Amino acid sequence: MNKPQVPDFLKNIRIVLARPNHPGNIGSAARAMKTMGLTRLYLVEPKVFPSDEANALASGAVDVLESATVVASLAEALSDVTVACALTSRRRELTTPLSTPRETTPELVARARDGEQVALVFGNETFGLSIEEVEQCNRLVTIPGNPDYFSLNLAMAVQVMTYELFSHTGVDVEYLRPESETASLGEVEGFCQHLDQTMEAIGYYRRRNSERLMRRMRALFNRSGMLRDEVDILRGLMKQIQRVADGHEHDGTA
Amino acid sequence: MNKPQVPDFLKNIRIVLARPNHPGNIGSAARAMKTMGLTRLYLVEPKVFPSDEANALASGAVDVLESATVVASLAEALSDVTVACALTSRRRELTTPLSTPRETTPELVARARDGEQVALVFGNETFGLSIEEVEQCNRLVTIPGNPDYFSLNLAMAVQVMTYELFSHTGVDVEYLRPESETASLGEVEGFCQHLDQTMEAIGYYRRRNSERLMRRMRALFNRSGMLRDEVDILRGLMKQIQRVADGHEHDGTA
Repeated sequence: MNKPQVPDFLKNIRIVLARPNHPGNIGSAARAMKTMGLTRLYLVEPKVFPSDEANALASGAVDVLESATVVASLAEALSDVTVACALTSRRRELTTPLSTPRETTPELVARARDGEQVALVFGNETFGLSIEEVEQCNRLVTIPGNPDYFSLNLAMAVQVMTYELFSHTGVDVEYLRPESETASLGEVEGFCQHLDQTMEAIGYYRRRNSERLMRRMRALFNRSGMLRDEVDILRGLMKQIQRVADGHEHDGTA
Repeated sequence: MNKPQVPDFLKNIRIVLARPNHPGNIGSAARAMKTMGLTRLYLVEPKVFPSDEANALASGAVDVLESATVVASLAEALSDVTVACALTSRRRELTTPLSTPRETTPELVARARDGEQVALVFGNETFGLSIEEVEQCNRLVTIPGNPDYFSLNLAMAVQVMTYELFSHTGVDVEYLRPESETASLGEVEGFCQHLDQTMEAIGYYRRRNSERLMRRMRALFNRSGMLRDEVDILRGLMKQIQRVADGHEHDGTA
């Protein structure tokens, strides 16, 4: 299976960092974005940008930093956006409904696919988003987590949101799966009968309930998801056992 | 709504870092774990541990580092484990089926709930898991992402996996939602009729298709998820408009 493409519509989803303090976080966020196929980064009044520290932490995602848009206000970053999600971990006395990344993402993906511009807005490391910033957004998103320790780092929050987005693109890890040849139920049953004959032939069933034993063995091998070459190896083993039991040589030349 | 508890069964899920190089990553991983309610960290042959750098990056999660178990081999970290997931981003010529965090997590949560010990195993930052390490696990998990830039940092991978786990615990962000009083369809309709009368009374409908206009307005307000106090504000406005139209004073004293 060929390596899939990053879906084109992800370019319609931007990450907005509002007033980030630490250049390292900008770099880590860029890296997090790129691992999940996102490229459009907006920085609202970054304290330091560009910087060597951001470039170092971006690792192979310096291109995301180089094409980043620096703006003077959140309004500027959102002017052409139809859905802006404010990431927040605090209880807010707002009437905008609060949702989780998993609840929100299907709508975001659908809108981005339709060509709408979508933004995920993250606040300052220490203070989060101000109430004025939140009010410029039309969605409120909270990443679920430990109610007693809600200390998700800025770049970690970007990673979780972009992972959630990517997981709804339909791009799977299918291309990484080795081609495997799962044995059919018939092939597994063929092996089980071979096993049954062997156990009978070598006298293992003596004083034992052969039906019950074979039921357990059938259950085991049916649930194991046997591959064809595993069936072959085991049937080869059964043959050799019977050969040995028949008094032939043990060297496999029979 | 009260703040929920972190489910107790999460203590049956451990994070295993195999041969981590950078103390900072150990600290960031501990922080990531704690944000998602996990506490049990196993370190297989860490290059440096304990360290000030790990403590600094753990932020409020130093307790996770302090209770971490340092072992000399992966086998030791897994001896009482029934399901061990090897995190890998490479194509491996292995017969263990490859799955995504979202596919795997329901089984992990179910087993941990039943009291089984579950492990998520992460490899060295540079080399990942060795084939020998992968073979000691009975699940292979790959985080989906950009096929052209698969450069998820170690602690980021821990964050994504633990986020995925936590999202299956059933602990929601419900307790963070402000109590809101959504208007019923009858209340929205009451307002719409009030709007209709007002538009009629002030002569807005002249030469316009009043039915079509009201259909659009009804659709808008029905989909807006109006709250009760929003209905009240708008009905107050309608009253004032009619007052003004009737030639009364504009100061609201009528």
